[in-house]
Amino acid sequence: MVKKISIGLLGLGTVGSGVVKIIENHQDKLMHQVGCPVEVKRILVNDLEKERNVEVDATKLTKNVEEILHDPEIDVVIEVMGGIEETRDYVLTALRNNKHVVTANKDLMALYGSELLTVASESNCDLFYEASVAGGIPILRGLVEGLSSDRITKMMGIVNGTTNFILTKMSKEGRAYDNVLAEAQELGYAESDPTADVEGLDAARKMTILSTLGFSMKIDLDDVRVKGISSVTEEDLRYSKQLGYTMKLIGYAHRDGEEVEVSVQPTLLADTHPLAAVNDEYNAVYVYGEAVGETMFYGPGAGSLPTATAVVSDLVGVMKNMRLGVNGKSAVAPQFPKQLKNEDKMFSKYFLRIHVKDQVGAFADLTTLFSNYGVSFEKIIQLPVKNSDLAEIVVVTHQASLKDYETIMEELRGLKILDSIKSSYRVEGEALA
Amino acid sequence: MVKKISIGLLGLGTVGSGVVKIIENHQDKLMHQVGCPVEVKRILVNDLEKERNVEVDATKLTKNVEEILHDPEIDVVIEVMGGIEETRDYVLTALRNNKHVVTANKDLMALYGSELLTVASESNCDLFYEASVAGGIPILRGLVEGLSSDRITKMMGIVNGTTNFILTKMSKEGRAYDNVLAEAQELGYAESDPTADVEGLDAARKMTILSTLGFSMKIDLDDVRVKGISSVTEEDLRYSKQLGYTMKLIGYAHRDGEEVEVSVQPTLLADTHPLAAVNDEYNAVYVYGEAVGETMFYGPGAGSLPTATAVVSDLVGVMKNMRLGVNGKSAVAPQFPKQLKNEDKMFSKYFLRIHVKDQVGAFADLTTLFSNYGVSFEKIIQLPVKNSDLAEIVVVTHQASLKDYETIMEELRGLKILDSIKSSYRVEGEALA
Repeated sequence: MVKKISIGLLGLGTVGSGVVKIIENHQDKLMHQVGCPVEVKRILVNDLEKERNVEVDATKLTKNVEEILHDPEIDVVIEVMGGIEETRDYVLTALRNNKHVVTANKDLMALYGSELLTVASESNCDLFYEASVAGGIPILRGLVEGLSSDRITKMMGIVNGTTNFILTKMSKEGRAYDNVLAEAQELGYAESDPTADVEGLDAARKMTILSTLGFSMKIDLDDVRVKGISSVTEEDLRYSKQLGYTMKLIGYAHRDGEEVEVSVQPTLLADTHPLAAVNDEYNAVYVYGEAVGETMFYGPGAGSLPTATAVVSDLVGVMKNMRLGVNGKSAVAPQFPKQLKNEDKMFSKYFLRIHVKDQVGAFADLTTLFSNYGVSFEKIIQLPVKNSDLAEIVVVTHQASLKDYETIMEELRGLKILDSIKSSYRVEGEALA
Repeated sequence: MVKKISIGLLGLGTVGSGVVKIIENHQDKLMHQVGCPVEVKRILVNDLEKERNVEVDATKLTKNVEEILHDPEIDVVIEVMGGIEETRDYVLTALRNNKHVVTANKDLMALYGSELLTVASESNCDLFYEASVAGGIPILRGLVEGLSSDRITKMMGIVNGTTNFILTKMSKEGRAYDNVLAEAQELGYAESDPTADVEGLDAARKMTILSTLGFSMKIDLDDVRVKGISSVTEEDLRYSKQLGYTMKLIGYAHRDGEEVEVSVQPTLLADTHPLAAVNDEYNAVYVYGEAVGETMFYGPGAGSLPTATAVVSDLVGVMKNMRLGVNGKSAVAPQFPKQLKNEDKMFSKYFLRIHVKDQVGAFADLTTLFSNYGVSFEKIIQLPVKNSDLAEIVVVTHQASLKDYETIMEELRGLKILDSIKSSYRVEGEALA
């Protein structure tokens, strides 16, 4: 039986300091949960002299990562330093040296998760990464627990706080994208280069992690179709609202039989969908399991305190498994071969907004085009465009395959009545309006 | 180290059968999680000959509970038989005989939870009851995990599927309470005697369990202020919608310093609140913790499969703790003395709908009455009542103490301008409309 558990910490920023504090302040509770004491033995830092916002015995600090990765007394490595390539090497070395790893690093897990999990499995080590997706929500644990007696067929996530903040403000206050982005940057919700957030890359990384775990299939970042929110307009949001939908940047992962699709894109969600009420910088993940049905986890997506708490929860899991002698089994490497759906098997409803020449037969041409592919309209709005000879047409289609929809878009571009395609979005759920 | 874990099952109805099936079908996964095999050794039933929808070795069935409670080989008792007084005796005996207990019984836990948890603690036994509140949502585990490094100050729950189904239908389809109740009864969502659901008693039992755990304080059923939904009218729902609110039966548990209040009552929730989007028979629990902020768990509140899954999750927890040697520590008896808020410390906004004589000065009288107690109005609607000399006034107040509000209601009844008080509800959150 293990007598004491020693931890090596990579990184002592806000999350790392939080981890140190929680472990110190909750020694008794940890002892009660795990049955033995736990100690942070060594901490990798860049600068030995820097002021810290947590009290740490200076002898524990080191600039030499080998003192952690090769210390046989260290049982668990907690990685909260960030970065990708170098960090990957550290984590691989730790696992190969039979150290369990807890990481909060979504970039690392999105790019190298399957590799790292495989090495962890081979070494009978745990590799936990709850904090890498939606820090304040125990979603990965929920998936793992659910998976033990269920089959997950669908996951939808609002997994990026910056874009959700922007879309919420745009929608509620009728403001333009650029205007709200500037405010988000001032408030610190968006970075000065907001690309990774607003173009959906951050969300795509998290969906890679979620779908790899939920479907037990090695989903790569390149497998995720990604579209960001930078071209969403006030008009789109106005129509969306009018038709009974709320626009959200949705990470969508769906399994049909053995085939899956994963995407991140602005989506019109029916107002009645529980995700539609997830506002501001909050995150939520909606999961459909065949046994349990619909569940949703909602909470803060980021923040150093929620993230540090998630890291410590993972640590408790690792420590319990150590004492049970069952490490390397609860978080396993992907078990099924990757099978991606073709575009003719990806079904969805679509919102389409176009400008056409305001002439007799224009709408009939549009209807004919869609019905040639068996696609009909669920909702239609047609209005003249002011000070022009154009009409604006907004439709919500019934279900169509992505293949058919893309062919229709292609042919639409060739129609004489078309002036311009203004916007097009996935639609999810049944709106009441 | 434990070599094998034996279970005694009390009850073999739909949940009990589900538990047996899950344990059989997931032997390998359970073994991976726990590190040793698990077997259902004996099952208490009423009728040895009855057809079962699960295959069970007939020699395992017994009508004599002593064969389970006094069998030294049985480590864990799973109680899915229901009932209160007799069941309490069984659970107490099991705990005193050092058997861990998993129960799905909300009535038992609401009435005797603190007593049972205390005995469990004294016997170093686990007593887990995840399935007793919102079967398909791991809310108790979420609270326990959250509690280990946070302080919970507020919980709001939609914890009764029947009433949520009724309010959702009434609100979306503009139908009357009796009409929707009849449909719910036909569909099996409401019982032929719906009192426990519609009058809020079932929700109150669950809030007793949640608040006892979340505040670590022995909250009794009598401490919960309860009002049901049977007097909610279509007019209330129409105004609610118009003002930007959604009516829900909300279990509300709030802590201010060391003092708490717990209630169950129809509440106007701002449409923007995540709970407002929880529709039909779904349940959700919203939790505010000082460290993590807002979180919410959403899912099916009942159903034999979700409930059986929750029971098995608890069982896994018990078994892990057995092998760790840390039983009786993760679910502890209440630690703090109960301190209930007085009515002058319970603050809320209120929705009030009244009929007054349609005469000069009527509204001024109303305003004066409220402002005498420092309460002003956030929203006001006044309309003539058709074919009468009355006016309908609807107000949403700013924050008021319950004490002041009740005094105001008392004085309102004495005002000459008053014809009748139609309805009055708590209001939660900031509506945009």
